[in-house]
Amino acid sequence: MAHTQTLLEKRERLLGPGNPLFYEKPVHLVRGEGVWLFDADGQRYLDCYNNVPCVGHCHPRVVDRLCQQAKLLNTHTRYLHENILDYAEKLLSKFDASLDRVMLACTGSEANELALRVARFNTGGEGVICTNATYHGNTRAVAQLNSIFEPFEGYGDDIRMVPWPDAYRAPDGLQGEALADAYAGKVREAIESFDQAGIRFAGMIVCPIFANEGLPAIPPGYMQKAIGYVRDAGGLYIADEVQAGFGRTGNWWGHQVTGVVPDILTLGKPMGAGHPISGVVARGELIDHYRKHEMYFNTFGGNPVSCAVAEAVLDVIEDERLVENAASVGRYVFDGFRGLQEKHDIIGDVRGNGLFFGIYLVTDRRRKTPAPAETKRIVNRLREKHILMSNIGEHDNVLKLRPPLCFSTDNADQLIGTLDDVLSSLQEQV
Amino acid sequence: MAHTQTLLEKRERLLGPGNPLFYEKPVHLVRGEGVWLFDADGQRYLDCYNNVPCVGHCHPRVVDRLCQQAKLLNTHTRYLHENILDYAEKLLSKFDASLDRVMLACTGSEANELALRVARFNTGGEGVICTNATYHGNTRAVAQLNSIFEPFEGYGDDIRMVPWPDAYRAPDGLQGEALADAYAGKVREAIESFDQAGIRFAGMIVCPIFANEGLPAIPPGYMQKAIGYVRDAGGLYIADEVQAGFGRTGNWWGHQVTGVVPDILTLGKPMGAGHPISGVVARGELIDHYRKHEMYFNTFGGNPVSCAVAEAVLDVIEDERLVENAASVGRYVFDGFRGLQEKHDIIGDVRGNGLFFGIYLVTDRRRKTPAPAETKRIVNRLREKHILMSNIGEHDNVLKLRPPLCFSTDNADQLIGTLDDVLSSLQEQV
Repeated sequence: MAHTQTLLEKRERLLGPGNPLFYEKPVHLVRGEGVWLFDADGQRYLDCYNNVPCVGHCHPRVVDRLCQQAKLLNTHTRYLHENILDYAEKLLSKFDASLDRVMLACTGSEANELALRVARFNTGGEGVICTNATYHGNTRAVAQLNSIFEPFEGYGDDIRMVPWPDAYRAPDGLQGEALADAYAGKVREAIESFDQAGIRFAGMIVCPIFANEGLPAIPPGYMQKAIGYVRDAGGLYIADEVQAGFGRTGNWWGHQVTGVVPDILTLGKPMGAGHPISGVVARGELIDHYRKHEMYFNTFGGNPVSCAVAEAVLDVIEDERLVENAASVGRYVFDGFRGLQEKHDIIGDVRGNGLFFGIYLVTDRRRKTPAPAETKRIVNRLREKHILMSNIGEHDNVLKLRPPLCFSTDNADQLIGTLDDVLSSLQEQV
Repeated sequence: MAHTQTLLEKRERLLGPGNPLFYEKPVHLVRGEGVWLFDADGQRYLDCYNNVPCVGHCHPRVVDRLCQQAKLLNTHTRYLHENILDYAEKLLSKFDASLDRVMLACTGSEANELALRVARFNTGGEGVICTNATYHGNTRAVAQLNSIFEPFEGYGDDIRMVPWPDAYRAPDGLQGEALADAYAGKVREAIESFDQAGIRFAGMIVCPIFANEGLPAIPPGYMQKAIGYVRDAGGLYIADEVQAGFGRTGNWWGHQVTGVVPDILTLGKPMGAGHPISGVVARGELIDHYRKHEMYFNTFGGNPVSCAVAEAVLDVIEDERLVENAASVGRYVFDGFRGLQEKHDIIGDVRGNGLFFGIYLVTDRRRKTPAPAETKRIVNRLREKHILMSNIGEHDNVLKLRPPLCFSTDNADQLIGTLDDVLSSLQEQV
C-alpha cells in the first residue's frame, strides 16, 4: 500500500493529475495469463472487464508471432510486404462481400477520424448523427461525437445527437414496432434539421450494440428503419466496431446482431490483443475514391509486426472457436445474471450479446431509478473480491462486463457466485 | 518480379489504389538488421532513409524487452504499472527542466492532435501558425497544417502559413540578421492578421529543423525572434520533434539546434523504434490545466509493452552513444557531401544536422533552379545500387537522408561513393 502511494504520487508528478484510474484502491498489475491478472502481491484477479486481450492475456501464439516478426523486420508500407496483404485478405473474408477494402491505422480514434473523413469526402456532406450518450475517441473531430464528455471546443452545428434506443426505459410506455418507429423517427428528424440548416448530410456513426450507452436491448427493426432514413437522405452508416468487433457478441461483428450491413466500419481495441492496430473497412468504391484524392499514410499503420500480431489474433479466434465460445458461455452467464435478477431487486435489467453484458442497477424497480452510488460500491467491492469490471451508461449505473473471449463456465460460476455474495452483503448493510 | 506484380495487384485490390509506395520498382523487404535491409531475393540494401528504427533494425535489446514484457502483461493505464513511470522519468530527464510532464499516445498524428488541443485549451485561442511547405499528420485538425497536401476540407481561417526560413534561396539577396528579421517578420505579420480577423492566437507549430521543408540552414537568430513574437502575443511554441527527436540531429532534441526551448513538443517515429508509441511533453502547468478539465484516455497509449520498448530505445541510445555517433559520423558524411558538391554541379546545397541531411539538387547553380526530375531519377538509380533514400522539399528536389543512428563511417563511404558514381553516370548520360 505504501508502494501504491508512491506510484500514485509519481504518476501525478510525471503524467499530471486527472489521469483516469480504476477503483478507489487502484490495482497494481504485474502479470496476465488467459482470463487472469496478477497484482504485485501475487493476488489473482478474474478479468471480467478487458476486451482488448480478446484471446486471453499474453496468449502464447500471439506473443510468438509478435516476437518472430519483431526479430525479423518492422518497417512501413512504402515498401512491399506480405503480412499486410495476408492479413487484409483474411480479415476481409470475415465480412459481407460488399465490405472489400481496408485501411490500417493504430488506434480506434484514428480509425474513427479516418472513417469520418472518408464519409464526408464521399458524400460531400458535413452533418453527422451520433447518439446522446456515447464516446468515439479523443481527437478533435471525433471528440465532437462525445456526448459523455463535452469537448472544450463545444459542439459544431454539423453534429446532431439522437437518443439511443432504450427498450427498458422506453418513452410513453411504447413497445415493439411503435418504439422502433419512435426512436428511428428521431434520426429522421435530425436529418431534417440538417436540411433546414442547409448542412449537407454525411451519415450516422454508432456502435452497433450501443456499448457506451449501456448495451440496451435494441427495439427490433430500429436499425433497419434508422439506417433506411440515413441512406434515403444520401448518408452513410458508419459502425464503430471498436468494442463490438472480433467475436465479442457471439458473432464476428457487432453489426450482425441487428443484421444491417454498414457502409464503413471501424476496428480497434481487440484487433491486436493490445498491440496498437486499428482499421477502417468499407465498400471498395468509398475507399478508392478517397485514396485517389487524399494522400493517407500512417507511419506505423499496417507494419509487418502489427499485421503478424493481428493475423495471429484472427487465427486464435478461429482455431479456439472463440466466437462460438462467446455465444455459448455468453448465454450461460446471461442466464446466471437473470437468476440473480430474480433474487436481487437492485438488478433492474440484464442486457448483452455474447460475452458483453450490462447489468442495469436501480434503487426502485418499478420506477427504474438508476443506482449510480450502489453501482460504484459494487464495482469496488468486487475488486476487493478479485473480480475486475467497471460501469458505464448515461447514469454510470450499468455494470460493464466484457471478459476475454476464452472465458469458461467455471469462470462464469465464480463471477456469478461472487456477484451474488456482494449483492447480498449490500442488501444486509442497507 | 512476377511476384512483385502479384503483390502490387493484391495491394490495390485489398487496400485500394493510391497507397503510397517508394520507387518506380518497389522494394519487397523481408529482413532488417542494423543499417541493413534485405529483400525477398536476398539482396542487401544500405538503409539511408529510415529514422524510425533509430537504434538499427531489429535491435536485439529492444526486441528482447518487447518480448519479455509482451509475455508478462500488456494492459492499459487505468491500472497502476511501473513501466510508464520509469519511462516517463527517464524520458523527461533528457529535457530542459521546464518540460516536466508527458502524455503518451500511439502516433505522431495523435501527438500533434493532442498538442494542438492542449495549446488551444490553455491559451483560449484558435489561431495557429505553421509553415507553407510542411506536413504534421493525417487527422482532420492536424491536416489543416498540411501545406504539402491540401486537405479536401480546405483550410480554416484559424490557420496562417508563413514561409519557412531559407538561407539558400533567400529573398532579395538578404543575409544574416536581416534575413532572420525578414522571415521572423512574416510570423509577426501572421499574428497581426489573426488580430485583425478577431481570431485569438494560440501558437506556432514547426519542426525545429524544418525537415519537410527540406532542412534549410536556419538564419541565425530566426527562431529566437519568431518565437519572441509568438510569446509576446500570448502564444505557445509547439515543436514537432516527431522527425527531429531522439538524437537525430546529434543533439537529443531538434530544438537544441537553435536553442529555443518549446512550451510543448511532440514525439513519435523513432520513440519505440517502430513500435507505435508517441508523446506530448510540455511545461507541467499546461498539461495539468488540460488534464483537470478534459478527460484524455488512450487505450494503447502508455501500455507496459510500449513503455518497455521505448525505455529500451532510450537505453540503447545512451549505452551505444548514438547521439555522439550521429554528431561525429554526421560531420563525416556532411564533409563527404560537400566534397561531392565541388565535383557535381547538380548539388546546389548540402544541409543537415547530425545524421539528417538534405541535398538540394539544381539544374542551374547560379539560378538555383530546382531539379525534381533528376532527383527522382537519382533516388531510383540509388535503389538499383542498393542504397535506400527518398526526396522532399517544396519542389521534391531535396535528397532526404536519415539513416539509423548506428550508421558508421564505412557505411558513409559506401553511401558517398555510390552517390558519386550515380551523379557521374547521370552527367555522362546528359
